[in-house]
Amino acid sequence: MNFPKQVKINEVGPRDGLQNEAVMVPAEAKVEWINMLSETGVPYIELSSFVHPDWIPQLKDATEVARHIKRNPAVTYAALVPNRKGLERALEVDVDEICLFLSSSETHNKKNINKSIKDTYPVLQEVSQDAKSAGKKVRGYVSTVFGCPYEGDIPIDNVISVCERLFSMGVDELSIGDTIGVADPAQVENVLIRLFDYFPKEKLAMHFHNTRGTALANVLMALSYGITNFDSSVGGLGGCPYAKGASGNLATDDLLYMLDRMGVRTGIDIDKIIQSSLYIEQYVSNLSSHQMKVINRTR
Amino acid sequence: MNFPKQVKINEVGPRDGLQNEAVMVPAEAKVEWINMLSETGVPYIELSSFVHPDWIPQLKDATEVARHIKRNPAVTYAALVPNRKGLERALEVDVDEICLFLSSSETHNKKNINKSIKDTYPVLQEVSQDAKSAGKKVRGYVSTVFGCPYEGDIPIDNVISVCERLFSMGVDELSIGDTIGVADPAQVENVLIRLFDYFPKEKLAMHFHNTRGTALANVLMALSYGITNFDSSVGGLGGCPYAKGASGNLATDDLLYMLDRMGVRTGIDIDKIIQSSLYIEQYVSNLSSHQMKVINRTR
Repeated sequence: MNFPKQVKINEVGPRDGLQNEAVMVPAEAKVEWINMLSETGVPYIELSSFVHPDWIPQLKDATEVARHIKRNPAVTYAALVPNRKGLERALEVDVDEICLFLSSSETHNKKNINKSIKDTYPVLQEVSQDAKSAGKKVRGYVSTVFGCPYEGDIPIDNVISVCERLFSMGVDELSIGDTIGVADPAQVENVLIRLFDYFPKEKLAMHFHNTRGTALANVLMALSYGITNFDSSVGGLGGCPYAKGASGNLATDDLLYMLDRMGVRTGIDIDKIIQSSLYIEQYVSNLSSHQMKVINRTR
Repeated sequence: MNFPKQVKINEVGPRDGLQNEAVMVPAEAKVEWINMLSETGVPYIELSSFVHPDWIPQLKDATEVARHIKRNPAVTYAALVPNRKGLERALEVDVDEICLFLSSSETHNKKNINKSIKDTYPVLQEVSQDAKSAGKKVRGYVSTVFGCPYEGDIPIDNVISVCERLFSMGVDELSIGDTIGVADPAQVENVLIRLFDYFPKEKLAMHFHNTRGTALANVLMALSYGITNFDSSVGGLGGCPYAKGASGNLATDDLLYMLDRMGVRTGIDIDKIIQSSLYIEQYVSNLSSHQMKVINRTR
């Protein structure tokens, strides 16, 4: 089986991880933690979300966090932005990259942001345009691609349509998300084959959740199709909002364990990732990654 | 990627699962549980181990369990046997298949059964011969193939040598074990390519542990090489003896989740497997499978 020699890992723990944890981590701890992550070799950190504080109170300190971290020039610091107001806040603190999000499921999008997919397009169009005018790269998250908690299977044509629209807005890269962690490798293969008919693989990242244990198998399939861009969260931080206590985001340390052993380079030091997992574990409940379980049980 | 249309799953929970749980499950509960497993469609159940009760007290009731289960003619009931005395006990209760075990690591074998690999061969030779004379199929477990807790990496030539010796004794099938759950898919590929130089793939099963989260990715790699025989344990029963609290055996329900969605047939009803996991969970602590975590957190 052929695999890429090198892949890029995007650390989404400070945003996608923390937003799914019940506890509020103090801003100073987030700053300290992101500073640790910045020294692991990870090239990309999504540091927070500039959504309305009522939506995700865990991330209401986005401005404070972005202002106080020590930026490593080798790292891209990104933030999630839902609308123009959020973009203004993100630009005020000069994040490097802007992330948009849209669900490929009508019901999930509605529940998530109280808008139809169609009505979300103009909002994202405006944000994307303004972000590009401000010289920022723009990344789009397409969620529930492999299944929706409300609608079940999502037709691949709906996914393609959402991706086309986002790319047409000037979005530079799309992160294809298994939001509820239901995907299997054969489905990953089928989805990628269809997406490759429309979009260059270099513009696609995969965002897997490990809710049903399949995330690394899905990564393996994506690697065999030449995908070189993956999202993950240190320690598997952030559970599954639809099954509390179950695994959520693919853990950066589990992903690194597999890639390191396979000889796929990431430039990231797994020991430093483990150290940053141990740090944030002081604030959140048990981390779900397999590496953390082995470490916590043997030390 | 090409996969087999159908695979065989061997349920090892009653043996490999329970022997790694701290609690003693009453014999009547084991009987009830194995009877449930017998109706799931699983074709093979390793029901216990006829080792000396001092070695593994959790399985000291092997005879009682084997006597009282209701045998489904569609199921092969196997038992682990370390020596002639164990074989006698297993034959007394007429199990269908005999399982031998041997480590590919000298140190692990010594710690496990207090004998060198070389000194273990005559013991296994005798058991294998007598089992065959009694009309039984014989299965061999080769452990620590992908890494040993004491020796680290095991040279593949040592593994091949152990496998050759076991086949030469008349063993019908070998289960290639990642005993401590360290394997990655590239290693699985490398090991299989070497083993296929010597042995037909139809005689090889894979026995993965999910300690570092890679078991399903390893299964995916093995499937792509045409392996159609996998060991697993319902609910992920049985932790890792080298890291208490960490995952051990690949969970049958996690394996089934992936295979079912990929369209690979097993003949097993996942809902019945979940029911049998919920049954045994009354006696042991939290099961580690991802499916069980989703179920326990959503019900």
